[in-house]
Amino acid sequence: MPQSRDGGAWSVIEVPIAIINGGKGPAVLFTGGVHGDEYESQIAISRIARQIDPQSVRGKIIMLPAVDLPAAVAGRRMCPIDGRDFNRCMPGDARGSFCQMLAHYIETTIMPQVEVSVDIHSAGNSMEAALCSIMHWVDDAKVIERTHVLAEHFAAPYNVMFWGVDETATVSASAERHGALSISTEIGGYGRVRPDAVRIAERGISNVLKWMKIVDGKPDISQPNGGRTKQMQVRDQRSYLFAPSDGLFEPLFLPEQEIRAGDLAGNLHFIEEWAREPQPIEFQIDGYIWMAPGSGRVKKGDVMAVIMQDYDGH
Amino acid sequence: MPQSRDGGAWSVIEVPIAIINGGKGPAVLFTGGVHGDEYESQIAISRIARQIDPQSVRGKIIMLPAVDLPAAVAGRRMCPIDGRDFNRCMPGDARGSFCQMLAHYIETTIMPQVEVSVDIHSAGNSMEAALCSIMHWVDDAKVIERTHVLAEHFAAPYNVMFWGVDETATVSASAERHGALSISTEIGGYGRVRPDAVRIAERGISNVLKWMKIVDGKPDISQPNGGRTKQMQVRDQRSYLFAPSDGLFEPLFLPEQEIRAGDLAGNLHFIEEWAREPQPIEFQIDGYIWMAPGSGRVKKGDVMAVIMQDYDGH
Amino acid sequence: MPQSRDGGAWSVIEVPIAIINGGKGPAVLFTGGVHGDEYESQIAISRIARQIDPQSVRGKIIMLPAVDLPAAVAGRRMCPIDGRDFNRCMPGDARGSFCQMLAHYIETTIMPQVEVSVDIHSAGNSMEAALCSIMHWVDDAKVIERTHVLAEHFAAPYNVMFWGVDETATVSASAERHGALSISTEIGGYGRVRPDAVRIAERGISNVLKWMKIVDGKPDISQPNGGRTKQMQVRDQRSYLFAPSDGLFEPLFLPEQEIRAGDLAGNLHFIEEWAREPQPIEFQIDGYIWMAPGSGRVKKGDVMAVIMQDYDGH
Amino acid sequence: MPQSRDGGAWSVIEVPIAIINGGKGPAVLFTGGVHGDEYESQIAISRIARQIDPQSVRGKIIMLPAVDLPAAVAGRRMCPIDGRDFNRCMPGDARGSFCQMLAHYIETTIMPQVEVSVDIHSAGNSMEAALCSIMHWVDDAKVIERTHVLAEHFAAPYNVMFWGVDETATVSASAERHGALSISTEIGGYGRVRPDAVRIAERGISNVLKWMKIVDGKPDISQPNGGRTKQMQVRDQRSYLFAPSDGLFEPLFLPEQEIRAGDLAGNLHFIEEWAREPQPIEFQIDGYIWMAPGSGRVKKGDVMAVIMQDYDGH
Amino acid sequence: MPQSRDGGAWSVIEVPIAIINGGKGPAVLFTGGVHGDEYESQIAISRIARQIDPQSVRGKIIMLPAVDLPAAVAGRRMCPIDGRDFNRCMPGDARGSFCQMLAHYIETTIMPQVEVSVDIHSAGNSMEAALCSIMHWVDDAKVIERTHVLAEHFAAPYNVMFWGVDETATVSASAERHGALSISTEIGGYGRVRPDAVRIAERGISNVLKWMKIVDGKPDISQPNGGRTKQMQVRDQRSYLFAPSDGLFEPLFLPEQEIRAGDLAGNLHFIEEWAREPQPIEFQIDGYIWMAPGSGRVKKGDVMAVIMQDYDGH
Amino acid sequence: MPQSRDGGAWSVIEVPIAIINGGKGPAVLFTGGVHGDEYESQIAISRIARQIDPQSVRGKIIMLPAVDLPAAVAGRRMCPIDGRDFNRCMPGDARGSFCQMLAHYIETTIMPQVEVSVDIHSAGNSMEAALCSIMHWVDDAKVIERTHVLAEHFAAPYNVMFWGVDETATVSASAERHGALSISTEIGGYGRVRPDAVRIAERGISNVLKWMKIVDGKPDISQPNGGRTKQMQVRDQRSYLFAPSDGLFEPLFLPEQEIRAGDLAGNLHFIEEWAREPQPIEFQIDGYIWMAPGSGRVKKGDVMAVIMQDYDGH
Repeated sequence: MPQSRDGGAWSVIEVPIAIINGGKGPAVLFTGGVHGDEYESQIAISRIARQIDPQSVRGKIIMLPAVDLPAAVAGRRMCPIDGRDFNRCMPGDARGSFCQMLAHYIETTIMPQVEVSVDIHSAGNSMEAALCSIMHWVDDAKVIERTHVLAEHFAAPYNVMFWGVDETATVSASAERHGALSISTEIGGYGRVRPDAVRIAERGISNVLKWMKIVDGKPDISQPNGGRTKQMQVRDQRSYLFAPSDGLFEPLFLPEQEIRAGDLAGNLHFIEEWAREPQPIEFQIDGYIWMAPGSGRVKKGDVMAVIMQDYDGH
Repeated sequence: MPQSRDGGAWSVIEVPIAIINGGKGPAVLFTGGVHGDEYESQIAISRIARQIDPQSVRGKIIMLPAVDLPAAVAGRRMCPIDGRDFNRCMPGDARGSFCQMLAHYIETTIMPQVEVSVDIHSAGNSMEAALCSIMHWVDDAKVIERTHVLAEHFAAPYNVMFWGVDETATVSASAERHGALSISTEIGGYGRVRPDAVRIAERGISNVLKWMKIVDGKPDISQPNGGRTKQMQVRDQRSYLFAPSDGLFEPLFLPEQEIRAGDLAGNLHFIEEWAREPQPIEFQIDGYIWMAPGSGRVKKGDVMAVIMQDYDGH
Repeated sequence: MPQSRDGGAWSVIEVPIAIINGGKGPAVLFTGGVHGDEYESQIAISRIARQIDPQSVRGKIIMLPAVDLPAAVAGRRMCPIDGRDFNRCMPGDARGSFCQMLAHYIETTIMPQVEVSVDIHSAGNSMEAALCSIMHWVDDAKVIERTHVLAEHFAAPYNVMFWGVDETATVSASAERHGALSISTEIGGYGRVRPDAVRIAERGISNVLKWMKIVDGKPDISQPNGGRTKQMQVRDQRSYLFAPSDGLFEPLFLPEQEIRAGDLAGNLHFIEEWAREPQPIEFQIDGYIWMAPGSGRVKKGDVMAVIMQDYDGH
Repeated sequence: MPQSRDGGAWSVIEVPIAIINGGKGPAVLFTGGVHGDEYESQIAISRIARQIDPQSVRGKIIMLPAVDLPAAVAGRRMCPIDGRDFNRCMPGDARGSFCQMLAHYIETTIMPQVEVSVDIHSAGNSMEAALCSIMHWVDDAKVIERTHVLAEHFAAPYNVMFWGVDETATVSASAERHGALSISTEIGGYGRVRPDAVRIAERGISNVLKWMKIVDGKPDISQPNGGRTKQMQVRDQRSYLFAPSDGLFEPLFLPEQEIRAGDLAGNLHFIEEWAREPQPIEFQIDGYIWMAPGSGRVKKGDVMAVIMQDYDGH
Repeated sequence: MPQSRDGGAWSVIEVPIAIINGGKGPAVLFTGGVHGDEYESQIAISRIARQIDPQSVRGKIIMLPAVDLPAAVAGRRMCPIDGRDFNRCMPGDARGSFCQMLAHYIETTIMPQVEVSVDIHSAGNSMEAALCSIMHWVDDAKVIERTHVLAEHFAAPYNVMFWGVDETATVSASAERHGALSISTEIGGYGRVRPDAVRIAERGISNVLKWMKIVDGKPDISQPNGGRTKQMQVRDQRSYLFAPSDGLFEPLFLPEQEIRAGDLAGNLHFIEEWAREPQPIEFQIDGYIWMAPGSGRVKKGDVMAVIMQDYDGH
Repeated sequence: MPQSRDGGAWSVIEVPIAIINGGKGPAVLFTGGVHGDEYESQIAISRIARQIDPQSVRGKIIMLPAVDLPAAVAGRRMCPIDGRDFNRCMPGDARGSFCQMLAHYIETTIMPQVEVSVDIHSAGNSMEAALCSIMHWVDDAKVIERTHVLAEHFAAPYNVMFWGVDETATVSASAERHGALSISTEIGGYGRVRPDAVRIAERGISNVLKWMKIVDGKPDISQPNGGRTKQMQVRDQRSYLFAPSDGLFEPLFLPEQEIRAGDLAGNLHFIEEWAREPQPIEFQIDGYIWMAPGSGRVKKGDVMAVIMQDYDGH
C-alpha cells in the first residue's frame, strides 16, 4: 500500500500476505491482526505459514497474519494512520484512507477467491472473552448447518451464534457477501498473549485445513473435559450491560461463569468522590459470562459484560 | 492542589483523602491509585473508608484511595498533567509539576505521622503479577522481621523480598525514610479489575488494622490451600528477562508457574517479516513466574518476565 | 451511536433525545448543542424536557439538548472524535465518521417527521452576537411570511434574514429540505452562559409550543423596551469584515451598536513587533453590529465583525 | 531567549521590551500578556510605548507588552513551549524551561531596578472579572497605604485587597520581594478584547506615570458615576464557589451584581443525562460578584464564582 | 475556502491565486506549493506573478504559488488541517475535507480552462532529485511528442518519462483528464531552498510563456554543459530500492551519479544494536541516480533510491 | 536507563556504548547522535567500534554512537521522551527527565575518565554547514594550541574557533569542565547522510586514535586540494543573520561561498500575500558561508546564515 507521510513522500507499507497455491482444491482465507492489540492470530497464522509444506497442499491457502499492520506494530486497536477500526471499514474505498484502501483490496481481490473465511480475533486490550468461535444467524438453514460444522472443526471451547448485529462493515460480513462460509473468533483478551489461546488458534487452523482436505490428516476436535465445542448464543438485547455513567467498575464475575438474572454483576465506583456509595449493577438474564471488561475505568456506554446462553437451535 | 489549565485559570484538583482519627493509638497509611491503571486498591480502600465505624477506631487511619487522581480518572499509569510516573517522584518538590507538588505534600505532611505504610499496587496495564505483597531488604534484622510479620498479616498468597532496586523515589522508599514499617503489593494486572484481588486487598487492610489494634478483631491470614503466605524473593539479576528487540512476544508461561533455567520462556515474533523465524527466549534461572507481560507487542528493553525464588532468609 | 476507541472496543455514545408524543397534533423539533461551546440551548431544552407535563401535549415534541454530545462534554465547537463541525455535516453518511453517521440519522429519521424546526445556537467561544433568531431568504413569499410569524413568536430581541449563504450542510438547511418551517438562533457567545440568553431560549421554546397549539397558553412576545422583535437583515457582502492578516484585533464596538461606513471598526495590532503601527480597520457600510469577535488573537480570514441592517422586506 | 526546536536548531524567541530612559527619576515596570489569552494589556502597553515622547520622560519606564510571547501569539493561557503558566514560574531558573528562564531574567535583571510594578491581567478565556486593580495584604501599614494610593491613581472602577493567597510565584510577588510597590489588575475576560477595558488600562498607565512625575500632567481618576475607585476585599474562604463535579454551569448572576448568602448562584446541569435534575449552587456569603465563570462546561474544582465585599480597612 | 475551527467559527482560508487575462490567446496553469515542504515553486511563481506586465500578455496565465497554503505555511508535506497529501486528493469532493474541497475547485473550475499545466515540485523534505521535469507515458504518439517539446522548453537539466504509476489523484493526472498538455517537476529537495533550482523554475516558466506566445521573446533552453535537456526514463520496477527494514541508511551515491547493477548502493545500519553488521544494499540495474534519500533514518518500505535510464523512445 | 511508560511499566532504554580497554595508555571519548537528526557520527562511530582490533589498542576508547538514542531512532533533534535538546542538558540531574539522567551519567561517570573528547555533529535537519571541526576560545594559550593540533589531526576541511557562546550545557563544555581536550564538528546537514561526511568522520576518528598513539599508524591529514585544514573563526556578532519575521527564505548562497558585506544574502517571501514584495536580506560582514539554512519556511528568530572568517590568531 503506498502511503505518503511527512518524512517519507513515496513510502509504501508492506502488509504481509502468504499464499500457498497447491493446485486443484478449495480455497481458504485466514486473517489475523485485524485489530492490532489482538496477538494470538498473528503468532498462529505466521507460524502455520512458515511450517506448512507447499508440496502437501491441494488447493489454495491465503494467510494475512497482520491485516492492519500499522495497528499491529503499534499494539493498538485503531489504525494509527487514519484512526479507523479496520473491522468497520469493509467494503472499503479505493480512493479513501489507508484502512479503506486496504479493505477495498480484500473485498474485491481476496474475498471472491475463497470458499471459507476464518477471521481470528481475541477481544483486544479492552475485554476478555470466553474462548470461542463466532457465527452470525442467517435465514438459510443449510448455511447455518455448514457453518456449525466449520466451527466444530475449528474446535474452540465455545461457538457462539449472534443475531441482528449490523455487521456489513466487518471482514466476516464481507465473506458472507461473497458466499463464503465464515466464522470469526474471540480467543483471549486483556491485550496480552494467552499461551492456551495460541494453541487453540493453531489447532483450529490445522483442523480446518484437514477438514477441507487441503492437507491430509484427521482433525482433532476434542476438548479438555472430554466433550465437544459447546453451542451457545447471544440473542437477547439484555445480554449487554452498558456502563450507565463514567466510573471505576468492579466486576464480580469471570468469563464462562454461570450467572442468573438479578445477581449482582458488580459495582460502579466514583473514586473522585470516594464517600459516595458505588452504584450496584445487576444481570438482567440468566446465562454465562461471554465477555468481561478489560479496563477498570469505564466510560458511559462502555460494555461491562455480555451474557451467552445455550443455543436453542433456531 | 491548585492547577491552572488553558480552560480553567484558577482550578483546583481535589485528591481524595479520608482520615479517621480515633484518638490514642498508632497511625497507618493506606495508599491506592498511585498508578492510575491499577484499580483494586482504589476500590478496596474507598470501600473500607466508607464502611469503617469511626467510633471503633483507636489511633489514626489515613487513606488515599487514588493518589494520582488525574491518572486514575484517565485509567493510565502516567499522570496526564505532567507525564510523570508518580511512584518516581518522591520526595517531590513544592515548586515543581503536579506530581512533584503532591509528592512533596505526602513526603512532608503525611509520612512523618505514620508507623505503618501499605501502598497497594496491582501491576497495571502492562503486566500481571503473582498476587503478592512486596518488601525491600534492609540491613536491620529487626526491621526485616517486623516487616515480615506485617506482610504475613496482610496475607496475600505470596510475599516477595527485593534487593538492591534503587527506590528512593517511591512511596515505599519515602515510608522507609521516615522509619515506618512499609510494604507494597502487586495484586492483579492486565489493566482490568480482578475480583479475587479486590478481596485480598480488603482483607489485607482489615487484617492490618486488627493486627495494629486500631480496630478490634482477629486477623484472618489463612490461604485457600490451607497454608500461609509463601515467602519468596527476587534477588538474582538473571531474574529479569528483557526484550532483546522490538517484536511480538509469545510467552509460554503463566504467573506462579514453576520454571527451570533453560526452559523456553517464549518466542519473539517479527510479524512484519512473517517468514523470519521467531527468536527463542530462555529462562536463565530456576524459580516461579512472578511477573508476566501484559502486551503482546514489546519494545526493546521491556520486561518480559520476572522470576521469583523461595526466600532463603538472608 | 456505536463508536470504537482504543480503550473500548464496543462502546456506544448515547446522544440524549427526549420525545413526548401526545397523540394528534403537529410535530416540532428543538435542537441544542450542535456546537459544544454553545450552552444556553443545552440548558433550556433539557429544562423544558424535564418540566413539561406529557398529559398536556397534543402532538409530538422532539428535543435533542446536545446533538454533538462529545463536543458538548468537551466544551468545544468541533467534535473531538472526528474533528468535524457538526453543522457542516448534513445530510450525513451512514458509513462515515461519527458526525456524519449522526447527521444521517437526523436527516433521514428525525427531519421527515417535523413541521417546525428550531435550532438554537449561541455564537460559541469565538464570537458574540446580538441576541437574535435567524432565517434564510427563500423564493416563496408564503414561506417567508410564515417563518416571520414563527420568529416573532420565538421572540428574541432581533430576527435576522440572511441571503445566499450556501447552507446545504446545516441543520436548518436539512429542515428546509424536508419542507419544515425553520429558524435558528444566535443568543450569547464568548463561550460562557448568559443568564438572559437562557431565559430567551426558554421563553422562545414555550412560545413556539403554544403558538403551534401543542400546549395551551398564550405566547409572551413582549420586549423589555415595550416593542416587538426587530426585523433585520444581513445581505450586503460588505457586511463581513475579515482579518487581513494575523494579529491582535482591538474592536471599538459592541454588539447592537449603531455604526456608519468609514467609522473606525478597530485596530489590528502586531504585538511581536510592538513598535509597528497597528492597522486601522474601517466599516464599509452603515448598520448595527450583529456579530463581535470573541478572541483577541485573530488569524487571516477570521471574521472580525458582521453588520446587520433594517430589513427592507424583499 | 534561545530556544531549540526540531525544525530550528539555533532559533531565538525575541520577547518585546521597550525601555525609555529619561535620566534622573523613578523607575516603573508595566507588564502585559503574562497570560496569552489576556489582550487589553498587550494593546494598551504597546500603544503607550509607541506614543510616549522620550524627551518628556524623567526616570525610567520599562514596558513588556507580551511577557509570555509564545502564549500571546497562540492566544492561550499556558505557554505552548513548556506548558507552564508563566505567572506560577517566578523566580524562575536560569537552566530551566522557556518560562523558567524568562522568569529568572525578570526576577534578577528587571525587578531590582523598579520602584513600582503594574502587572495588567484581564481574567482570560475562562472568566470575567469586575474591572479592578488588585493588591495583597501585607503587615506593614505604610506599604498598604502607599499601595492604596497607587491603586487609586490607576483608577479602575474597583480595587480589591486579597489575603493569604500564596503568591510567591507570581510577577506581583516578585515585585514585592524586591521592595517595589505592586498592583496587578483583572480587567475584562472571556478571551475577547473589551473596548472599555483597553481605555481603563491606557488611562491607568498614563495616570501612574503622572503620579510618579515621570511625565507631566494631572492624573484623571474620576469614575463614570462621579465617584472614585471603590475599595473592596476578598477575604473569607467562602468567597470562592468551586464546581462540586463536572457539568454545565448555568450562572444566575453577572459581574458586579450584589448577592446575598443563600441566594441561588446557579444550577449545575448534567446534559448527558438530561432527565437528571440539575444541582442548585448557593452563595455562602453576602457581597458582590467579583469573578464570573467563562466556560459553560466546568470540571470538578473549577472556580464558578468569587465574591468581593466592601473593604473593612484591616 | 471556509474552514471552521474551535477558535474561529466562521473563518476562511484564502488560497493565493493570480490570474492575468490578456485577451485572446492560449491559457496556461502554473501550480506550486502542492506540497508545503517544497519551496522553489512558491518563490518562482509568485515572483513571476509580481513581475509580469499584464499589458504584455496575450492569453491567460493562472498561477497558484501555494496550492496547499496551510501546508506551505507549516513547511510540511501533509496538510495540517486534514492530514492529507494534496497530490492524492484530485478530483476532490465538494463536501469533503479541506484538501478535497480545494481539489474539487481546481478540478472543476481551473483545469477545464487550460491548454498547458506545469505543476512544479521539488522532492520535499524526505528526498533530493536530479533536477528534472517529469511526464507520463500515454498511448498517443502525438501527445508524447508535444509533451516532449513542452519539457524541452521548460529546459530542466533532465526530463524523465514514467510508466504505469497510477496517478489519477494528482494534479498532473487532472490536467491529463482535461486534455491539457501536462508536465510536473522535481527540482531540489532536502526541505531547503536551492538557489539554482529557483533559477531553473523561473526560466522554465518564462520559457513556456514564450513558447506558447503568451509573452514575446525567445526561450533560452541551453544547458550549462552546452547541450540540451537529457531525455531519461524510469520504467523498470527494479529502479526502486525500498528499505527492507527500519534502520539508518548510509547511501554511497549522489543524485545524477552513474551506477551499475551489483554496485553497493549503501549500508543499512542498526545503531541500537551497534555490534550488528550493517546490511549491504545493491543496485539492481544500470543507470543514473534520479532520487536520493533525505532522511538518514528510514522505515521499512521507504524509498532509498530511484534509478533513471536513458530514454529508449517507446 | 529505566524509563516508565503507559504501555511498559518497568521498561529500560539501552543506550549503546562500546568500551575498548587496551591497558596502559590515554583515554578518548567519541560521541555521536547527540542530536537524532545527525547521522554521519552514528555510522562512523559504530563502524569503527566494530572494526577495531581490541588487541591493537593501548589505552581506552569509549564510543557512544547514539547518545540520545530515542531521538536517533525517531530521526529528530529533540528527544521524543522529554522534548529536550540533549546538548542543552549537561551536567544533568540524577532525578530529572530522561535526557537529564543520561547527561548526569555522562558528566559524572564518563567525562572524568577521558583526556580527549570528540563530539561529532552534522548540523541536522534544519541547516547545512561547511564541513568542519569546532573549538571554543579559552584564555589559556597552551590549551588553544593543543586543541588546534587535535583539530588538525581530525582533519576536516575547516576548523572554526568560536568566542563567547555560553555553552555550559553542551557535551563539549562538559569535556572542558573536566580538563579534557575537546572538539566537536559540524559535518553535513539537511537531515540526510552525506557520503563524504561519513568518510571525514571515519578518517578523523582513526587519525585521532593514531595521533594519541592508542593505535599504530600515521594520521592522514591531507585535503583534496593538497592543503591542510583551514583555520577559521566566528567572532563578530554580525556573523549571524536572524529571520526578522516569519516567511519563506530564498537564500542566494551555498556553504563555503565567499561573500561581502552588503551583498544580497537572500529574500524573505510572504507567499500568503504573494503580491507583497519580498524583504531583501543583506550580509553585514565579509567572509565565507559557514552555515546555510535547511528549511525554506523560517520563523522570526531562526538563523538564516552564519559567516566565518579567516582565523586571526587571538
